[in-house]
Amino acid sequence: MKSRSFDLMNKVAVPTKSKVVLLVIDGLGGLPKEGKTELEKASTPHLDELAKKGISGMTDPVGRGVTPGSGPAHLALFGYDPLEFEIGRGALAAAGIGFELGPDDLAARINFATVDKEGKITDRRAGRISSEKNKELCLLLEKIKTEDAELFVKTVKEHRAVLIFRGAGLSDELNDSDPQVTGVPPRVVEALSAKAEKAARVVNNFLRQAEEILKEHAPANMILLRGFAQHPRLPSLEEIYRLRPAAIAAYPMYRGIARLVGMEILTTGEKIEEEFQTLKDNFHSYDFFYLHIKGSDSAGEDGDFQRKVRVIEEVDRNIPILTDLCPEAIAVTGDHSTPAVLKAHSWHAVPFLLSSPWCRPDGGERFSEEACSRGSLGRFPALEVMPLLMAHGRKLAKYGA
Amino acid sequence: MKSRSFDLMNKVAVPTKSKVVLLVIDGLGGLPKEGKTELEKASTPHLDELAKKGISGMTDPVGRGVTPGSGPAHLALFGYDPLEFEIGRGALAAAGIGFELGPDDLAARINFATVDKEGKITDRRAGRISSEKNKELCLLLEKIKTEDAELFVKTVKEHRAVLIFRGAGLSDELNDSDPQVTGVPPRVVEALSAKAEKAARVVNNFLRQAEEILKEHAPANMILLRGFAQHPRLPSLEEIYRLRPAAIAAYPMYRGIARLVGMEILTTGEKIEEEFQTLKDNFHSYDFFYLHIKGSDSAGEDGDFQRKVRVIEEVDRNIPILTDLCPEAIAVTGDHSTPAVLKAHSWHAVPFLLSSPWCRPDGGERFSEEACSRGSLGRFPALEVMPLLMAHGRKLAKYGA
Repeated sequence: MKSRSFDLMNKVAVPTKSKVVLLVIDGLGGLPKEGKTELEKASTPHLDELAKKGISGMTDPVGRGVTPGSGPAHLALFGYDPLEFEIGRGALAAAGIGFELGPDDLAARINFATVDKEGKITDRRAGRISSEKNKELCLLLEKIKTEDAELFVKTVKEHRAVLIFRGAGLSDELNDSDPQVTGVPPRVVEALSAKAEKAARVVNNFLRQAEEILKEHAPANMILLRGFAQHPRLPSLEEIYRLRPAAIAAYPMYRGIARLVGMEILTTGEKIEEEFQTLKDNFHSYDFFYLHIKGSDSAGEDGDFQRKVRVIEEVDRNIPILTDLCPEAIAVTGDHSTPAVLKAHSWHAVPFLLSSPWCRPDGGERFSEEACSRGSLGRFPALEVMPLLMAHGRKLAKYGA
Repeated sequence: MKSRSFDLMNKVAVPTKSKVVLLVIDGLGGLPKEGKTELEKASTPHLDELAKKGISGMTDPVGRGVTPGSGPAHLALFGYDPLEFEIGRGALAAAGIGFELGPDDLAARINFATVDKEGKITDRRAGRISSEKNKELCLLLEKIKTEDAELFVKTVKEHRAVLIFRGAGLSDELNDSDPQVTGVPPRVVEALSAKAEKAARVVNNFLRQAEEILKEHAPANMILLRGFAQHPRLPSLEEIYRLRPAAIAAYPMYRGIARLVGMEILTTGEKIEEEFQTLKDNFHSYDFFYLHIKGSDSAGEDGDFQRKVRVIEEVDRNIPILTDLCPEAIAVTGDHSTPAVLKAHSWHAVPFLLSSPWCRPDGGERFSEEACSRGSLGRFPALEVMPLLMAHGRKLAKYGA
């Protein structure tokens, strides 16, 4: 464990029976449309009630001005400095399809692409081929044999797939084959350090065979690889905080990230209500729960302001299931902002709410960007969410005499 | 000096005749009982007057969620990063009885304990023997001779005492003999690094003799040692800030911590009024004063909400003695929170008030958690108190051209 903050948490964390819940409404933070953000527009009587009893503030996921991806944003929420720990794109993609990376695995993100007769890239997404075609091509590619590694080619969606090599000594210190532009051929994959030479040989061997197989499958007549990554080897939440943590997430990617930090993954349904029901059903078996809501982010990415409002309202209707369980501490926040008016993740601070019998209530009347900006927690790094949640859950002993 | 912040302070600090006062109301922060915290309940017209002229905020002593002991909490207030500098329990215990540790001293906290016939611990506090019995046993133990070190055994109270070895090359890299649980024998003290081998030999030699002496003194028929610590060797406030600092504290522990950072210790009485009088009597001889009030923390620890309110009110009545001296800057805060409803130190942020002719008043009307949460200083690390106080005391020159 590298982080100084881990040393401290490790010193003071004590296992207790008390329960804490981290409810992440993905992409929660918004921007106003006709004067109000998505959260401000939503009718959220139950979340407002939590705010009245609790404390609030605004978090910066990675740092002021930084727009985070899901990986860094979640790492910060779980207490891992996102600038110190990285989940490479390949590892995140593997996590995203529920592929559990082992210590000898090397993963990369695949784009099916189109190249012209001279081998120059004309479309980095192969005209967004159908997911069916994608599956069919993955099966063909998975038949490739390389001498030093087993391999897996797993479909994702449209032009996206994941490639995993399994073999001893496969370093991820490789450059991408994807040049990120069209009009040039894919780059040769080269070892960025001596220890990655074997990996480079294996990958290039695979790429030569893939080219041969795909040449009759235009527009998907090539693949581009990026984000070579091994298992990020994060210290577990159990190691750091002595927790027995469980994750409830309808989307595979978030289950994957949760697995990387050592959470137990609970089987749940696609609906928000089912996720809350899973929490209820498993409440006695764990002491930390991460509950992830995806729909708010998807709506934001789609630029659908009203749908994001409705997702937030649906979460709110389910809050009584959570509060009836009487956890010692509840945090409600987002991993980052996804304002519908931007149709994308953004750098804006994220509303944060903490409710516990051990709060010093700060007079907040609502759960909203506006109210949280005046909360007693002020504006703070998301990295401090875990210590706060642990403290209010009475899971931290005194530091020093 | 390790800290980067020390380098900066050292560059810009200038000795001036102006006076600054840091008034620490121990365990000041509270939690509401019937809607108000101890500080909010207290009638504090003079502190409120300071708040009206000054600026306020809320501090985190060590970090969000972290409950600090007195050592780390005070280090932060004095400008020492409590995660970088540690006062070991032994050194703090020695400080607590006013024993001045030298460079060749190794200190540990003693618990008198009870062991059964098989040598297994049955009571880690020896039934909380009387302080008189404790004194008597300390005198017996102090007669022990070890070949390589002089030794001191100093009584504290009930089952608690302090052991100090004095001799060259006594490293504190030793494990505790106290296993922190009953039903097992005390642990053998082992060197955690090669350089601590001599210390381990000396300590175990002492322990064998102590066992022999104590065996007829059941229930106090054994001692347990923990928190081996040498002098923490902190850079002094004079070195860092070019101050001539003085400490006024009725309780020995706080005089001890103040001595460790190089303050002059002023003789004072047990009463709050006497402490303020000591400030007045010595006001012309120093440029920095640390004035410590203990009663608020003790009342909080006892769960006595009303007594904590009364201590705060008593401090308030004495504020005119302080303001009549017209220091250039006054800071009033706690080292941490000790809410009576928790009967313990806690992680909650601490009200902070700074009054000086050089403040940009922020419209605060009261000195309270509620008002300070809306203060212009926002929520900030206690580590930044000293630079703020120094600046308003006109003791910091410009940084850079």
